[in-house]
Amino acid sequence: MNLAEFIEGRRDQHLAELCEFLRIPSVSAKSEHKPDIERASRWVADHLRAAGFKTVEIVPTNLHPLVYAESLEAPGKPTILFYGHYDVQPAEPLDLWTSPAFEPTVRNGNLFGRGTADDKGQVHIHLKALESLRQVNGKFPINVKVLIEGEEEVGSVSLWDYVQKNKEKLKADALVVSDTAMLGKGVPSITYGLRGLNYYQIELTGPARDLHSGVYGGAVPNPLTILTELFAKLHDKNYRAVVPGFYDQVAKVSKAERKALNALPWKRKEFEKAVGAPVYFGEAGFTTIERIAIRPTFELNGIWGGYIGEGAKTVIPSKAFAKFSTRLVPNQEPHKIAKLVEKHIRKLLPKAVHCKFEVLSTGKPWVAPYHAPIFKKAQSALEKGFGKKAVFIREGGSIPFVTQMHDTFKVPCVLIGFGLPDENAHAPDEHIALENYFGGIKAIAHFYADLAAL
Amino acid sequence: MNLAEFIEGRRDQHLAELCEFLRIPSVSAKSEHKPDIERASRWVADHLRAAGFKTVEIVPTNLHPLVYAESLEAPGKPTILFYGHYDVQPAEPLDLWTSPAFEPTVRNGNLFGRGTADDKGQVHIHLKALESLRQVNGKFPINVKVLIEGEEEVGSVSLWDYVQKNKEKLKADALVVSDTAMLGKGVPSITYGLRGLNYYQIELTGPARDLHSGVYGGAVPNPLTILTELFAKLHDKNYRAVVPGFYDQVAKVSKAERKALNALPWKRKEFEKAVGAPVYFGEAGFTTIERIAIRPTFELNGIWGGYIGEGAKTVIPSKAFAKFSTRLVPNQEPHKIAKLVEKHIRKLLPKAVHCKFEVLSTGKPWVAPYHAPIFKKAQSALEKGFGKKAVFIREGGSIPFVTQMHDTFKVPCVLIGFGLPDENAHAPDEHIALENYFGGIKAIAHFYADLAAL
Repeated sequence: MNLAEFIEGRRDQHLAELCEFLRIPSVSAKSEHKPDIERASRWVADHLRAAGFKTVEIVPTNLHPLVYAESLEAPGKPTILFYGHYDVQPAEPLDLWTSPAFEPTVRNGNLFGRGTADDKGQVHIHLKALESLRQVNGKFPINVKVLIEGEEEVGSVSLWDYVQKNKEKLKADALVVSDTAMLGKGVPSITYGLRGLNYYQIELTGPARDLHSGVYGGAVPNPLTILTELFAKLHDKNYRAVVPGFYDQVAKVSKAERKALNALPWKRKEFEKAVGAPVYFGEAGFTTIERIAIRPTFELNGIWGGYIGEGAKTVIPSKAFAKFSTRLVPNQEPHKIAKLVEKHIRKLLPKAVHCKFEVLSTGKPWVAPYHAPIFKKAQSALEKGFGKKAVFIREGGSIPFVTQMHDTFKVPCVLIGFGLPDENAHAPDEHIALENYFGGIKAIAHFYADLAAL
Repeated sequence: MNLAEFIEGRRDQHLAELCEFLRIPSVSAKSEHKPDIERASRWVADHLRAAGFKTVEIVPTNLHPLVYAESLEAPGKPTILFYGHYDVQPAEPLDLWTSPAFEPTVRNGNLFGRGTADDKGQVHIHLKALESLRQVNGKFPINVKVLIEGEEEVGSVSLWDYVQKNKEKLKADALVVSDTAMLGKGVPSITYGLRGLNYYQIELTGPARDLHSGVYGGAVPNPLTILTELFAKLHDKNYRAVVPGFYDQVAKVSKAERKALNALPWKRKEFEKAVGAPVYFGEAGFTTIERIAIRPTFELNGIWGGYIGEGAKTVIPSKAFAKFSTRLVPNQEPHKIAKLVEKHIRKLLPKAVHCKFEVLSTGKPWVAPYHAPIFKKAQSALEKGFGKKAVFIREGGSIPFVTQMHDTFKVPCVLIGFGLPDENAHAPDEHIALENYFGGIKAIAHFYADLAAL
């Protein structure tokens, strides 16, 4: 039986197993899910063993464990390091899910559930591709190292510590990651660029305590108003971030590359259908695809303060909060940007509030030389899995690990994503198209097989 | 035994009984507290009967019941209508209370707990003053009607309906209310002006669903940013509300009255100690006391949207929310102001969001002719209770019922408050000074006794 037939015959079994993985609510941002995170790490380790890895380790960290496995039984063949994550975003707001976030459900050819696309479903594609190769050929065609972490959604702190201490162990000829999306339905894609990400939180304190808005209103500073006035000053009318120096390090993108990006089979209608906003806007002078692929952003991700319950409460609160982030592009340096942002925010704020400014995480942007041979192998393997030519894209999301690995090991990183842009990765009703999940297993199995001849 | 001695001898009993009342978490804004609201209404009815009222009714409404009682056994004597409320504000944020909100606790001469000042403690002052009069004299010296509602903190909708249908029944020579504060510690006060209150909520919807800020950030409208840009436009640099027409109906306050207000024994240091803000500001051209007493405001009371939990979530949310209110002064007309506010907000908002605009409640401002005889009786009764001359003040808070009653019955409304401005009426650690609670019972008993000779 050939590889493709073998995989085709295992569809139901693969899907059932993925659902089992998805049922574990491995939310890394919430301490109450610590036991689930640990259960998920054991699940990954068990399934790596079942796939044929003899060396499998669950590595404890200061936060959530990571899982490492290796199989070095193909002397003379290339070694690849596959990276993924088993943790997921919080599922809130729960009431907006059509079916519960941690009860995976198939509807209209899609599998719904938190982690289906980001990233458990894609990790599972690799586990099943490797397992299938082993079962069909009796062994892995190349040397494989696997690193699956549990902190991707909260900044990958422990992972990086682990990599620094295990540089020799993790050495490989290439890094392979599936934590990105295809450009669109039926367009298999290889990502050669990612934006970096700094995530911030501020807490503004005005009055020392919550006040009655009748007894005090009009005569005391209101931190909610000051918060709104602050963020209103952080974009100009061209929707550029107003932080002095923010764009200084942005690398110029060649005309040829901008042309190639704009020529991609990207469909505005599909994009707008996925978003569902009344109108669209962004930084002046750039197309939608450029705004996401090659431009930095400054975005609010959450604001809160005062009374947010049912009904009315006439309060002037003591505190106001915001979570926000900057997406970064080459060659913006995250720590430098964080300093510029903090400095400008402190400058803009009036004396009427104290400000606690926190940088929750930083991450560098990345671009790859996508003409290298391994990228061509990836392109042909995708064609075998999906029957269509794959395109090269730059994505707006961030995978700090990719940059860090690239900087550390100076090897190519190949990002092959099986999600779709409208799959609600960080939102309610996250899902993955079953055709991409099943096609992904085939494509990745061919990719690993073909790498034997790299 | 005279009245003052009788009341003095009942201190422990009165306090214990008040604590029992405060332990009922009668939060009117939250539907989960419906049973507590009903329990509180029965508690009030039972204690009115114990005070000597033979006619006591619990009146069901569309929301929370109100309690009515009357004693008309003093022919030829004046009739007063006492109004109060047994519902309380939500206790959140719970973790900022030194002792639990619904477990009343005495510390440093103060009784802490939700409702101590606003308004259960003050309602109880009247119940105990009336009960003491009956016990000392065998009867009430005047005719008394009592109306205690359970919806004051959520807009008093049912109450007003009840009043309209029972105009004859509620007729009285004066309205007496204790739901305000003294100007400061040791300054017994009669309030002759209140601000009106409109309370609003808006919901902005940009994208139809929450989006990943990497995959979409930079190319889609962010309702959080739009919310901040909206509210940043609603105050000018002189901290005046920027809503066309907002100040058009504001009545001019005479120089004499402004002078009297500014001459009150109000202590800036105490005010600033109570608030604890780094600096203070408000509408240019007015003193702090004027900003609260005679000027309208536009204040945010709550904002929320996006991810507000622990850690980081890289989301561009579909929705952003705000609760806000306008305090109104004579002669601003609440419905007109609500229309101006909605119109201007809709004008300011970009097409990138849909806006749901709700007016949760409206309430008119009020001022009284404080030279009328009943105000002089109140002033002398307060002197008997506290040993100090009472002052006349205008408060920044709102009691819609007062305005409505004044408009309907054209009788004087006397507002005698026993709270203090720093007693955190709508905030954690709400409390009442025991000296004001006990002094209040004496003063109110004398007031009702003296009214026999009005």
